[in-house]
Amino acid sequence: MPGPTRVAVDALGGDHGPEEIVAGALAASSESVEPLIFGPAGLDTQGLELVETTQEIGMDEKPAEAVRAKEDSSLVAACRAVREGRAEAVVSAGNTGAMLAAGLLHIRRLEGVLRPGIALVIPARKGPSVLIDAGANADCRAEHLLQFAEMGSIFAHEILGVPHPTVGLLSIGEEPEKGNQLTLDAHRLLAGSDLIFQGNVEGRLLLEHAADVVVCDGFTGNVVLKVMEGTTRTSLDWLRTEITASSRGKAGGLLIKPAAARLREHLDPETYGGAYLLGLRGLCVIAHGNSSRRAIANAVRFAARGIEHRVVDRLAERLAEESPEERVSIRALSESNPQER
Amino acid sequence: MPGPTRVAVDALGGDHGPEEIVAGALAASSESVEPLIFGPAGLDTQGLELVETTQEIGMDEKPAEAVRAKEDSSLVAACRAVREGRAEAVVSAGNTGAMLAAGLLHIRRLEGVLRPGIALVIPARKGPSVLIDAGANADCRAEHLLQFAEMGSIFAHEILGVPHPTVGLLSIGEEPEKGNQLTLDAHRLLAGSDLIFQGNVEGRLLLEHAADVVVCDGFTGNVVLKVMEGTTRTSLDWLRTEITASSRGKAGGLLIKPAAARLREHLDPETYGGAYLLGLRGLCVIAHGNSSRRAIANAVRFAARGIEHRVVDRLAERLAEESPEERVSIRALSESNPQER
Repeated sequence: MPGPTRVAVDALGGDHGPEEIVAGALAASSESVEPLIFGPAGLDTQGLELVETTQEIGMDEKPAEAVRAKEDSSLVAACRAVREGRAEAVVSAGNTGAMLAAGLLHIRRLEGVLRPGIALVIPARKGPSVLIDAGANADCRAEHLLQFAEMGSIFAHEILGVPHPTVGLLSIGEEPEKGNQLTLDAHRLLAGSDLIFQGNVEGRLLLEHAADVVVCDGFTGNVVLKVMEGTTRTSLDWLRTEITASSRGKAGGLLIKPAAARLREHLDPETYGGAYLLGLRGLCVIAHGNSSRRAIANAVRFAARGIEHRVVDRLAERLAEESPEERVSIRALSESNPQER
Repeated sequence: MPGPTRVAVDALGGDHGPEEIVAGALAASSESVEPLIFGPAGLDTQGLELVETTQEIGMDEKPAEAVRAKEDSSLVAACRAVREGRAEAVVSAGNTGAMLAAGLLHIRRLEGVLRPGIALVIPARKGPSVLIDAGANADCRAEHLLQFAEMGSIFAHEILGVPHPTVGLLSIGEEPEKGNQLTLDAHRLLAGSDLIFQGNVEGRLLLEHAADVVVCDGFTGNVVLKVMEGTTRTSLDWLRTEITASSRGKAGGLLIKPAAARLREHLDPETYGGAYLLGLRGLCVIAHGNSSRRAIANAVRFAARGIEHRVVDRLAERLAEESPEERVSIRALSESNPQER
């Protein structure tokens, strides 16, 4: 019988301080999950194992420079622990760019992976949907989007339990000829793949459920993710303001409180606690910068679930199926002249 | 004293049929606004002047081809009327791509304009905000974004009445070094311009009020617009579902009905009825495909307001201020090597 899953937790990531991170890690600790805290000497880890580190990467530091300069930061040391087999996954609420840089440098890409991508679960109304890339790569080529779709499909299958995940390409119209140069090229690659590609999808349906996997470049994905979060929050806050503007409304507001709380619970980004950075030789979970202890606990459990379902192995198997020749032909196709729009 | 503003209205655009369009145009007709209907012989225009046309451009036709092949379509004829001075503005709820193509071909660009852009009003909580480009140009260069910012600022000043409009560049972080290659380049151009540039803005704040003018490429803008519309609708519908799941909730739901109606009214895209296509030698208003008569009436009034405020003249003046040398230097700057990210 295997021992518990060891998850390296960066205590210095995030806005709420190490106590909140430790409390979250402790809450997730169980017979099957063993958090390992990376942080400064003297940190009260509530009995969890501490790996002492001497440096810290700030939220605003330049990622690549910080990762190279601060080898003994909690974030880098936690990633290195995965590389060295002392942990099976890493969780950080720190600088996302630094996680990406440390992942590439210390955990390294899986064979065949062009670019790791961030897979984020959208808590859509008709069931969860994976958005990939949610922000790792601001500029992408079509072949990156094809790999995001492959990685997202494995994620949807293993983690969300979708037997045959559908893939949608986020664009500005459902017709194949609608989009920018990147989506036109990616559409052809996806249509020629063995994925269950349902064509372009529009942003209108994202919160309903556009597809099991929604693929886009990391700039678009990150903008969309923030627009969704902000629009939901503003819509509900605005409604509350309108409701409390009259005494009749206030009475109604009290009565609908449980319903509103259920909706906020559904939409809460803390439910998953973080996003997977997929395409590395180990599992990375990037938690929201302002994660509460509940979010961190869920992020640690979410990481453990990925280990249990052997997500990294599944990705390695899938990407190893593509021969180098296939990759070359994909590259040639994605660089060929576009069809006339 | 000038005569009424003549607005050419394409009766065949949109999903609801010509009767709805005519009803909307009629509702907007007044002493100062005179709609001119473009549609087939025999159409009952309720007394409004009819310009008979013999062809129709469908919502799914390829824009450039359709516009060239169907010179006597209601959409093309309405645009030509602006060019020929028989109308001062055109309104269509038809094929957006065809409006863009017909505008470029028949109304033509203002001197100095690289690409026309769609300026859409976001009904943000702390006051309206202009999103430009909301979908005319799927692939853009940095110098296009600079012009969108200039055109959007004139729109915000003249139409929204903002004395000194602020400009925000939609990106994935507020720091200047966050973004994709396009926004990094555009950031430098905007920072060097005489606009009131407040830097990058994030999607999180769009529905609150990120800036008076929010600039982005047309792919991102169109995706964002649809994400906002869909997320608002789904959030409120979902809340209604939660509310009506219990009898306590149902009672509360009745009490908050007026508040919810006020919010829906605020957020209703029909309030403006359409978006301006800016950068042409005449004013084009693109109405939503599923516009009701109320939306069409508002779109016609919105067009008349643009004429009253001489928006096209203001754009021409602003863009004529830029000498060809300035444009060349802007182009050189935008094509120079990016700073290291």
